[in-house]
Amino acid sequence: MTQARAALTHTIQAVNAQGEVQTMSIPCERALTIYLDKVEIVTLMTLGAYPEWLVLGYLRNQRLLAKAEDLESITVDWSGGEHGAGVAAVKTKMTRLQRQVHADADADSLGHPQPSITITSGCGQGSLYSHLFEELQQMTLPPGSIDRNEVFEIVNTARTQDSTYKSAGSVHACALFNGTQALMSVEDVGRHNAIDTLAGWLWMNPQWTAQPHFRPIFYTTGRLTSEMILKSAQLSVPIIISRSGITQMGLELAQNLDLCCLGRALHQSFLCYSATHRLVMPLGLPSSDKP
Amino acid sequence: MTQARAALTHTIQAVNAQGEVQTMSIPCERALTIYLDKVEIVTLMTLGAYPEWLVLGYLRNQRLLAKAEDLESITVDWSGGEHGAGVAAVKTKMTRLQRQVHADADADSLGHPQPSITITSGCGQGSLYSHLFEELQQMTLPPGSIDRNEVFEIVNTARTQDSTYKSAGSVHACALFNGTQALMSVEDVGRHNAIDTLAGWLWMNPQWTAQPHFRPIFYTTGRLTSEMILKSAQLSVPIIISRSGITQMGLELAQNLDLCCLGRALHQSFLCYSATHRLVMPLGLPSSDKP
Repeated sequence: MTQARAALTHTIQAVNAQGEVQTMSIPCERALTIYLDKVEIVTLMTLGAYPEWLVLGYLRNQRLLAKAEDLESITVDWSGGEHGAGVAAVKTKMTRLQRQVHADADADSLGHPQPSITITSGCGQGSLYSHLFEELQQMTLPPGSIDRNEVFEIVNTARTQDSTYKSAGSVHACALFNGTQALMSVEDVGRHNAIDTLAGWLWMNPQWTAQPHFRPIFYTTGRLTSEMILKSAQLSVPIIISRSGITQMGLELAQNLDLCCLGRALHQSFLCYSATHRLVMPLGLPSSDKP
Repeated sequence: MTQARAALTHTIQAVNAQGEVQTMSIPCERALTIYLDKVEIVTLMTLGAYPEWLVLGYLRNQRLLAKAEDLESITVDWSGGEHGAGVAAVKTKMTRLQRQVHADADADSLGHPQPSITITSGCGQGSLYSHLFEELQQMTLPPGSIDRNEVFEIVNTARTQDSTYKSAGSVHACALFNGTQALMSVEDVGRHNAIDTLAGWLWMNPQWTAQPHFRPIFYTTGRLTSEMILKSAQLSVPIIISRSGITQMGLELAQNLDLCCLGRALHQSFLCYSATHRLVMPLGLPSSDKP
């Protein structure tokens, strides 16, 4: 696996409302085309901080790669095209026949002769196979709860890690915590790229999921739409904290999955939208048996 | 064309950081599956304010429908599935053969035997055919400029029109102006849905584009990524105002297209990122001949 981290910000000049020229940073945005065993899959627009993990997490979340062991190599090269466009060449251990059988079985078992792509309201690579939606609604997430003060601590930690956001704005951040310990933090121009990058990172770091006391918690600056909930569930993470709010479909899914969504999380304040039994309040405050 | 406007907000209860139950609104989010002459095309996640214009604009921006005259009818029905999922049935005047010839010609002329879908960092139906990218870089946008005070006036007008945002948050808004006159304003869970809805509306209201003094200006709450710039250019709109910032690829495209991008536009302040000759400053202030 290469480590083809690209420059994340770009210095520009803009004219302000007083007619003055200001120098500032904006986030980079690059096209990254993924080839899976030489077959072109998709082009993602990304900041380019951790392209290999992004590619791996994308293939994982799109069910194009069933397990980390099937991967042979990921090679990212940013020198290919104009505007810093990149190419990610993914080699797997699967033969073309195996992959076809895998894809057919996946489609057959759900009665879809061809997978139909759903393009969602999410920022970023907003495509998930719609049958995944039905499948995940039946899954059971692991137990796990969060204390009110832990929410405050995670929000505070996440806030101090948004480095590209601070210097250039216009990016989403996403972080994976074990309890209140930040394991990995990612920013990207699309919030789905950010969570996919975490998914790829987690696949390559199985020592965390193997721990008996692993308590995964996601933090995201993005909205809690249905697709964010699905991606979190796919990674068996039962608690998400967001700086933004929730949509109706995100809420319904979270309720069905018993996934705890905490939104509008800022300094010392938040709203718990679902699975409130996972939120532990200090003694003396109302116990959150509703909603 | 139906007018199947759905409910836009949904009342829920959430627990706050003090353990108190609060009643509030969240935006609705529905799956809308588009069938073009009985062929399933895509499922969009949408707020559902103007589904017919959204469908029309989506088909237009994806180049699946070449001109408004090819359309026979759009029928949206929200009563179909669970969770308020909807179906949009689009009937065209094209025969299957005509559509195939059209699609083949489009692909052939650009040397792509099959169109490759690019999924971008944008919120929403982030897919555009990558050849469109190359094609649009060669187009010339119409002349058109904007006065500093007009920017302030448009930002102020747009701010007062975000009705779902005010009551429920978590949506993006988009509006089309003729000079400082608001023609049409849309909110959606995805900012690309919002701009596609405007595109559909504009197609059905050709009296505006036919006006000799039509001065189209877009306002969006979303970031100015490459895809937003492309969609604006496809509609021949040479000026975009955004509450958010710009990404590097968005900026490069805007510079190539001579499209004026005004970002971080809040009360009495903004940054002009590109085509500054289109921004007219009051006398006595520096003329914006840079960048």
